[in-house]
Amino acid sequence: MKALCVTDGGLTLSEVPAPKPRGNEALVRVSMAGVCTTDLEIVRGYMHFRGILGHEFVGRVDQTNDPRMIGRRVVGEINVGCGTCRLCKRKLERHCNTRAVLGISEKDGCFAEYLTLPLRNLHRVPDVLEDKLLCFVEPIAACYEMLEQVTVMQGDRVAVLGDGKLGILAAQVLNHLCADTVLVGINERKLAVARSCGLLTARSSELEPKSFDLVVEATGASAGMCVAVKLVRPRGPIILKSTYHGDLVLNAAQLVIDEIKVVGSRCGPFEPAIAALAGGAVNVLPLIDAVFPLDEGVAAIKDAQRPERLKVLIAMNAKATP
Amino acid sequence: MKALCVTDGGLTLSEVPAPKPRGNEALVRVSMAGVCTTDLEIVRGYMHFRGILGHEFVGRVDQTNDPRMIGRRVVGEINVGCGTCRLCKRKLERHCNTRAVLGISEKDGCFAEYLTLPLRNLHRVPDVLEDKLLCFVEPIAACYEMLEQVTVMQGDRVAVLGDGKLGILAAQVLNHLCADTVLVGINERKLAVARSCGLLTARSSELEPKSFDLVVEATGASAGMCVAVKLVRPRGPIILKSTYHGDLVLNAAQLVIDEIKVVGSRCGPFEPAIAALAGGAVNVLPLIDAVFPLDEGVAAIKDAQRPERLKVLIAMNAKATP
Repeated sequence: MKALCVTDGGLTLSEVPAPKPRGNEALVRVSMAGVCTTDLEIVRGYMHFRGILGHEFVGRVDQTNDPRMIGRRVVGEINVGCGTCRLCKRKLERHCNTRAVLGISEKDGCFAEYLTLPLRNLHRVPDVLEDKLLCFVEPIAACYEMLEQVTVMQGDRVAVLGDGKLGILAAQVLNHLCADTVLVGINERKLAVARSCGLLTARSSELEPKSFDLVVEATGASAGMCVAVKLVRPRGPIILKSTYHGDLVLNAAQLVIDEIKVVGSRCGPFEPAIAALAGGAVNVLPLIDAVFPLDEGVAAIKDAQRPERLKVLIAMNAKATP
Repeated sequence: MKALCVTDGGLTLSEVPAPKPRGNEALVRVSMAGVCTTDLEIVRGYMHFRGILGHEFVGRVDQTNDPRMIGRRVVGEINVGCGTCRLCKRKLERHCNTRAVLGISEKDGCFAEYLTLPLRNLHRVPDVLEDKLLCFVEPIAACYEMLEQVTVMQGDRVAVLGDGKLGILAAQVLNHLCADTVLVGINERKLAVARSCGLLTARSSELEPKSFDLVVEATGASAGMCVAVKLVRPRGPIILKSTYHGDLVLNAAQLVIDEIKVVGSRCGPFEPAIAALAGGAVNVLPLIDAVFPLDEGVAAIKDAQRPERLKVLIAMNAKATP
């Protein structure tokens, strides 16, 4: 099969053997996949990953032990725990110390014609939702993770820092609970996309210090963290919702004086994400900038690296960009 | 009256007018006070404070509107909020944006014969507790603050990083709830003091990574924060319980991947701290290295700056070091 691989020599489109499902795994024929900022970081060396890139996908089950699942349209959770350790037994498989992560660590990813995942990682999805919407389930799930980590109440003032794709998704998820969630950014085009998704937008200098009950840092940069510390109210939480590569420099005195809580946040629950897409709580179409065929996968990644880009998708069976 | 003042020219013992209580304030005749690491940071320039230093004290009420309080032995909370803002009305006076803080910001402190504080800031203390014990109420209260910020359960594995006075107090407060709390340090003498207070001690290299349900960072240094990130379990909290001067460098990727929570922690509730001293839950006597008379206040601060020192006290009416 064709696959987009991270190698010592860089990113290449290669012909590789299709994976073989083992034990409780399913073989999934991938139909479409999304390029995430984490993929771009991996291409730059993050996680020292070698193998097939990609972890946001939708596809159909091709082979598995459970005949009821054959042919089902699915999306998939990306962490594969050992299933036996203390964390896995507490349903914290996402934090298993020896986990593999699809396209990120110890497991080939979804920028390929086929992938394997344990059946328990797969979620069936409604036929009514198009492939290009379902490529957003994984990042939207990551946004719902925030709601499992901090208490958000109607009427809370929320600011999301970062006009990238994750920032715009996170702001929509929070805006559904807390109207007037503000997306803070600097790129006029991306801010316009955010507004077309129904969000309020602002520059950080326009906002009152210490006035937000929750701040989400989705810029991935120390400068964003400085703004977050300025905007959050005393005792308020700052959620780190981004891929960081390198160190973050923090004004620790302010964290202590204002008793601020900084909460790292990663993968999240798929059910509310699928429901949000189905129910229209999150609008993803304005974020899609391009769809490339897998044959042009290297060009797709290069395109996604352009700073003005939001979402780039890869269609496995398409032959031309729609 | 005599007072130990931070001036543009450095720390000096000066003769200054005694403060006059206003409105709801009490005039307190200070009997003994404790030197905190924050005081040493202020002498080095932290907070740009100018005025009388010191915020840990015990004394007797000398003047006030409430005749029942005259002559009472008291300790005092150090934050003085405006009393009218949104935060003050939510009992978050400790976080009032325009607060004064005894000996730290906008208010003269306790290294003096007299101080003033609003009556509502004062707590009566049992006569059975000696002055030198009561000088620890404020820092022990700061340790109880942690229990209001994170959920700690019996059986949780707890590590406290930092063999300074706050680390040893924090470890004792947590050890009372979670037996086998480990104090992590590098100074053999201070670790011996910690053991004499009933604590387990260790070097960080002896501890299993990701095995602690709660880690308290009380070293005040980036290196301590690195160790904290290594030791805490996925999704576990790290409490920042120290005075930081300057930036803290963090491995943000690890915070996100392990979904770690970093919680700044400052002043806390006085009631449980007084009860802990009265009930023997916290043993402070082994931490006292010296008691200086106020006349030798400059020497007291110099002594407290020595790296091997734990607690240095200042007795307002004593004439010689006991």
